[in-house]
Amino acid sequence: MEDFKNYFKKDMFIVNVGIELLEISPGYAKAKLEVEEKHLNALKTVQGGVLFTLADIAFAAAINAHGNSAVLINANMSFVKAATKGTLIAEAKETSINPKIATYNVNITDDEGDIVAIFQGMGYRKKTPNDFS
Amino acid sequence: MEDFKNYFKKDMFIVNVGIELLEISPGYAKAKLEVEEKHLNALKTVQGGVLFTLADIAFAAAINAHGNSAVLINANMSFVKAATKGTLIAEAKETSINPKIATYNVNITDDEGDIVAIFQGMGYRKKTPNDFS
Amino acid sequence: MEDFKNYFKKDMFIVNVGIELLEISPGYAKAKLEVEEKHLNALKTVQGGVLFTLADIAFAAAINAHGNSAVLINANMSFVKAATKGTLIAEAKETSINPKIATYNVNITDDEGDIVAIFQGMGYRKKTPNDFS
Amino acid sequence: MEDFKNYFKKDMFIVNVGIELLEISPGYAKAKLEVEEKHLNALKTVQGGVLFTLADIAFAAAINAHGNSAVLINANMSFVKAATKGTLIAEAKETSINPKIATYNVNITDDEGDIVAIFQGMGYRKKTPNDFS
Repeated sequence: MEDFKNYFKKDMFIVNVGIELLEISPGYAKAKLEVEEKHLNALKTVQGGVLFTLADIAFAAAINAHGNSAVLINANMSFVKAATKGTLIAEAKETSINPKIATYNVNITDDEGDIVAIFQGMGYRKKTPNDFS
Repeated sequence: MEDFKNYFKKDMFIVNVGIELLEISPGYAKAKLEVEEKHLNALKTVQGGVLFTLADIAFAAAINAHGNSAVLINANMSFVKAATKGTLIAEAKETSINPKIATYNVNITDDEGDIVAIFQGMGYRKKTPNDFS
Repeated sequence: MEDFKNYFKKDMFIVNVGIELLEISPGYAKAKLEVEEKHLNALKTVQGGVLFTLADIAFAAAINAHGNSAVLINANMSFVKAATKGTLIAEAKETSINPKIATYNVNITDDEGDIVAIFQGMGYRKKTPNDFS
Repeated sequence: MEDFKNYFKKDMFIVNVGIELLEISPGYAKAKLEVEEKHLNALKTVQGGVLFTLADIAFAAAINAHGNSAVLINANMSFVKAATKGTLIAEAKETSINPKIATYNVNITDDEGDIVAIFQGMGYRKKTPNDFS
C-alpha cells in the first residue's frame, strides 16, 4: 500500500501534526504519533484535536483502502484518559460496510496499553475511485 | 476575559494551528481560523481534525469560563460541507449545565454563512478552579 | 400536514409508546409524550429508549416533510436531567441539508422548561418520495 | 446474577418492549429481542427507538454489574442495516472504566450475523451501590 502512504503525505495537516501511517489494508489501518511539546494544551495534556486527527487519519486510510474515495460525515469520540507523553497508536477496524456507508471503531492506546480515546466514525463512499496521481 | 485569552495562548496546539479566540463569557465563546495551506488534506479541503480543534477550543473556552476547570469527555461531530478557504467561525452555546456535567452545541460557519460542521460536546467539571498563573 | 400525521399512525411502536405529533413542516417538527408508569425504568425515571424514540420521531417528521423518504443513519444523544412525570416535548430543528444528507438538533424539555436530553441526528435522503398510501 | 435479572424486570419499559437479558457480568452483558409487529415503523422496519432501547439495556446491565449505580449520560448510535424480523442480539463490551466514567461498545446483530446497529455509550458511576430490594 505504498500508493496510500504516499497519498497521505500530501495531507499537509497530517504531516505537520507528525502522524505516521504504519499499516493500511481494506477496512483496517494503524497510525502512530510521538507526543511532542507542540501537541499539548495549557494543562500539559495532549489536545483533544490532536487525538481526533490521529483517529481520523486511521479511519480515512481504512475506508479509502477499499478503492472508492470516501469522506467522514460523522464522528463520535470519548476521551477517557489524559495522554501526556510517549507514543500513541490509533487502530481502525471496520464495523460495517455497504456501497454508500461504512463505519469504523478506532481505539487510541498509550505506552501502557491503556485506552486514551475511542472514536466511532461513519464515512460516505463516493462512486469515484481514489486518485493517487 | 483577558485572563482567558492569555491562558489559551499557553495551548501550544491551538497556537500552532492558528486559532484565535474572539469572545469568551460563561457558557459562550467564539473562535476564528483563517484557512491556510497547512490546514488542508490531500483533497485540498480543510482536514477534519482542524475543524474538530476549532470547535473544541470554543467549547473549552465556554465551559471553563464558568470558573471550574473542565475537560471534554465526549464529542459528536457532523461534517456537512467541505471548507477550502476563507475564514471559519466556531460559536459555542451552552445547552445544559449542572455541577458536574455541562453540554454545548458548536456550529462552524464559513464566509458564505453556511454551516460546515456541527459539534455537540459534553464536559466534566472538576471542583478545582482554573489556574491562570 | 394531515397526511404526515396519518402516516406516523402506521408506526406501531410510536403509537404503542404513546407519542403524538403536534407540528410538522419541512425541516421542523414537534412531538409530545405524557409520561406514564409504562415509560419508567427500575429507578422510576423515564427510560432512555423512550426519550430516544421521542426525539427520533420528531427528527423523522422534520426530515421526511421535505418529501423524500429519509432514514436515520446516526444519532448522538446526551441525557442531562432525569424525567419522572408530566409532559415531555421534543422539538426538531434543521441544521443542514443537501440532496443526500440532512442534520437536525432535537431538544427534549419538561414541564419546567428544563432540557432533559439533546439529540443530534443525521439522515440519509433517498431519491424516492414518501408513500402515504 | 439473578438479582440483576430480577432488578431489570422492574424496568416497565423494557418489559413492555419485550427485551430479555441473557447474560450479565461486570463489564459485559447480552440482551435479546424477538421482533414483533409492535416494534415496526411505517416502513415495516424495526423502529430506531427499539434498537436504542435494546442496546441501552445491555449497556445498563454491563455497567451496573460492577456494583455502583450508574446512569447513561451520552450515547452515539449508527444504524447500518434495516431489521425486519427474527431475533436481535445486543452484546455490550466495556472499552474503559475509571471510578466516575465507563464506556461501552454495543453491537446489535440479526439472525444472519449481520450488524444492524452500533452503539457507543458513556455512563456516570455514582458512589452508591445498586439497590436490589
